[in-house]
Amino acid sequence: MKHLISADQVTKELFEEIYSISQIVKGALKSGRKKFSVLRGKCIVNLFFEPSTRTRSSFEKAGKFLSADVINISTSASSVKKGESLIDTVKNLDMMHPDVIVLRHPCEGAPETVKNFINASIVNAGDGRNQHPTQALLDAVTLKERLGSLEGKRITIVGDITNSRVARSDSILFRKLGAEVFIYGPSTMIPRYPEALGVKVLSSFDELVEVSDVVILLRIQLERQNAKRTFPSVREYSELFGLNGKKLERLKLDTLILHPGPFNRGVELTNDVVNYKNSLIFNQVETGLAVRMAVLSILCGRKEKLLEEVQ
Amino acid sequence: MKHLISADQVTKELFEEIYSISQIVKGALKSGRKKFSVLRGKCIVNLFFEPSTRTRSSFEKAGKFLSADVINISTSASSVKKGESLIDTVKNLDMMHPDVIVLRHPCEGAPETVKNFINASIVNAGDGRNQHPTQALLDAVTLKERLGSLEGKRITIVGDITNSRVARSDSILFRKLGAEVFIYGPSTMIPRYPEALGVKVLSSFDELVEVSDVVILLRIQLERQNAKRTFPSVREYSELFGLNGKKLERLKLDTLILHPGPFNRGVELTNDVVNYKNSLIFNQVETGLAVRMAVLSILCGRKEKLLEEVQ
Amino acid sequence: MKHLISADQVTKELFEEIYSISQIVKGALKSGRKKFSVLRGKCIVNLFFEPSTRTRSSFEKAGKFLSADVINISTSASSVKKGESLIDTVKNLDMMHPDVIVLRHPCEGAPETVKNFINASIVNAGDGRNQHPTQALLDAVTLKERLGSLEGKRITIVGDITNSRVARSDSILFRKLGAEVFIYGPSTMIPRYPEALGVKVLSSFDELVEVSDVVILLRIQLERQNAKRTFPSVREYSELFGLNGKKLERLKLDTLILHPGPFNRGVELTNDVVNYKNSLIFNQVETGLAVRMAVLSILCGRKEKLLEEVQ
Repeated sequence: MKHLISADQVTKELFEEIYSISQIVKGALKSGRKKFSVLRGKCIVNLFFEPSTRTRSSFEKAGKFLSADVINISTSASSVKKGESLIDTVKNLDMMHPDVIVLRHPCEGAPETVKNFINASIVNAGDGRNQHPTQALLDAVTLKERLGSLEGKRITIVGDITNSRVARSDSILFRKLGAEVFIYGPSTMIPRYPEALGVKVLSSFDELVEVSDVVILLRIQLERQNAKRTFPSVREYSELFGLNGKKLERLKLDTLILHPGPFNRGVELTNDVVNYKNSLIFNQVETGLAVRMAVLSILCGRKEKLLEEVQ
Repeated sequence: MKHLISADQVTKELFEEIYSISQIVKGALKSGRKKFSVLRGKCIVNLFFEPSTRTRSSFEKAGKFLSADVINISTSASSVKKGESLIDTVKNLDMMHPDVIVLRHPCEGAPETVKNFINASIVNAGDGRNQHPTQALLDAVTLKERLGSLEGKRITIVGDITNSRVARSDSILFRKLGAEVFIYGPSTMIPRYPEALGVKVLSSFDELVEVSDVVILLRIQLERQNAKRTFPSVREYSELFGLNGKKLERLKLDTLILHPGPFNRGVELTNDVVNYKNSLIFNQVETGLAVRMAVLSILCGRKEKLLEEVQ
Repeated sequence: MKHLISADQVTKELFEEIYSISQIVKGALKSGRKKFSVLRGKCIVNLFFEPSTRTRSSFEKAGKFLSADVINISTSASSVKKGESLIDTVKNLDMMHPDVIVLRHPCEGAPETVKNFINASIVNAGDGRNQHPTQALLDAVTLKERLGSLEGKRITIVGDITNSRVARSDSILFRKLGAEVFIYGPSTMIPRYPEALGVKVLSSFDELVEVSDVVILLRIQLERQNAKRTFPSVREYSELFGLNGKKLERLKLDTLILHPGPFNRGVELTNDVVNYKNSLIFNQVETGLAVRMAVLSILCGRKEKLLEEVQ
């Protein structure tokens, strides 16, 4: 694997490989070991054109724990203001011999476009409403940890599906791993052609209760909504589609809850949900770090070195 | 010690320990040694919700000189904008196995609140007008270096006491170490119940001259003042309470001058004061780095390793 | 060399030294080696008061590839907002024992002023319209790589000469190395006393074609132009002074093209120019990294260690 641009690229085999590496890495992290020399002499650039705490710091830690040199570049202090094009920015960075460029960009297709111009590997850390493949990987790994396999599982994604790169990447990967994917949300947030995603639209919470082994809640991404779209308001969304203690009681006993974060307590979920015994929201973050360590090692051709050193 | 939240926590014994470590560290730094493997494999997150050059870079250097992995997160590029609560931000970071989270936050009590939700150690790097314990430690260490002991010393803090977390932390620690603490400033900047801080209010510069072995000048923190409070203006403050060459001549010959920085030349002090032979303003910065290296080592259970390696 | 403030400091001997180190470093980088222990135990502070992607990340990589501790400070999150003077900011940083402070500042002369107050070495990474010596070094190294020597070569700098620190540093260094320097641009962007720079003003593109062995295009720095100056507009500039495919055909066959970046495609140059066989624009970036590794090593007294380790 040279680049990780889209969940489409992730084969079952690649997923199994990332899964097993991530489990070994998590074991080491839990035992307090978090410095490995795997990527010593490698350089990772975090190039973020959108604000991010979680994803950026997850990649930064992943790189540093593996002894890579990590350089953060965010637009706020960037020559982008001076009129440089994305391709030129990336080509310039590439001339300084990074091994991996982790790119977050508001435009769909940005990583796909720039990858042809450079020597470094590209990891898509989110391109507009398009893809966020490491999120899909960490979600799938989190679920496999609990469920053993995603084969035949029924997973419902709730919220602003239209604007969500997580929904897109998740549904592609989950289906590839044998799961059935459903979506649920206000009609203003449901894509016009759900069949293009290979997902089925649920029309009521009752339906959701009946089919869901897993519920993935999405953040209401106000920043991506058209300013004129006024339905639903945050309060309406919370009332109609938010998950709370009462609704939780209606779910099957073993239904798992995920959320890619950051989440808005009181909007898409309540405290009851965060603290629910089947909520894996914080596990996702921990798993994300391990998954990114696996991905970076694979992209740098150091998978064996990682396994050797961690075990 | 699991967390460092408040100067209240700092016992005499802990202070003596930090003092002696910091002296050894300063010796090493002065001789040009500034890389130790003490915290190799440890991870420190600087989580700053307010702008800071000095404190953030002091903690960052402290961590890096000790070979920790240091991750900086500032609000400007943060998911806080996306509606996440502080507790969730910190819990999420904690899932990525940091050892220490250095937290600066505008809300009083923020570090106290979040510490119960996480595994990492918390260092309070300033919470609103409440506490800034490493500043108190470095001020006390700076004074002990010169004075041998704070026992019986009389220390006057000048300026905007009401809005100052430094004044609060300093007075708590100084008194614990046997000093007597006075405050002096415009009545609009003097707390209504100074006895709650265990300090006495001085009413004139003559009084200050008479009692002070040490004078600590505070920055006029315009950003914390109520917009409607118009007295004193910067010019009035400078005229009435600022320290300058003339006033300096009236002080006792060995009165020491401190300022936590950043300072405004021409407001709370003049060039004469900065360059004064008894001014310890820049010493404080150097000592701060050593104190933070000591604190981080203690929190990570690596005090012995530090002493072993530095000596 | 204690500081690198201006191209005026760079002797022929120093340039030759930096040239030969940079060639060895580039060889190592191209072969995939980019971690050296040369500056282990050294600390480099990037103190940037203006936004920068390229220069800051180039210095950051240079430092990290050499195993220095690198601390980034940018004004956006800085105590400068709190009223501290530049000198005090730098003196404070200096108390934390950095070895090199890389300073970018909008005021001309800032690095020259602060160098007298500190122990660390200062590298001027751009001070207003004054100097940018590492850019001049990397431009000259890039040219020497191709031309063998700058002796007798004729170099034309095109664009907003008045506002360009690159034009100033370049012309000083190029002339010292034996080149003849010309400038070309709209009269509103040509300095009133070009003889002070030792350069000759060209009055037409025909003249430029005739004399130029090298053409250096500058970015149109709108942010430095007086708001009222309305000539030329970006479109006019592009039409009259921008380089494009047609004009390229008129140049001598071996004329080299440089641009310090970031460049605006469609303004000072077109895609044809970027992709031109004699365009060295991306080479400059790669060379810049190697030059900065050389400069940092020299300033830290570790030149021999670098040569030893890289070869």
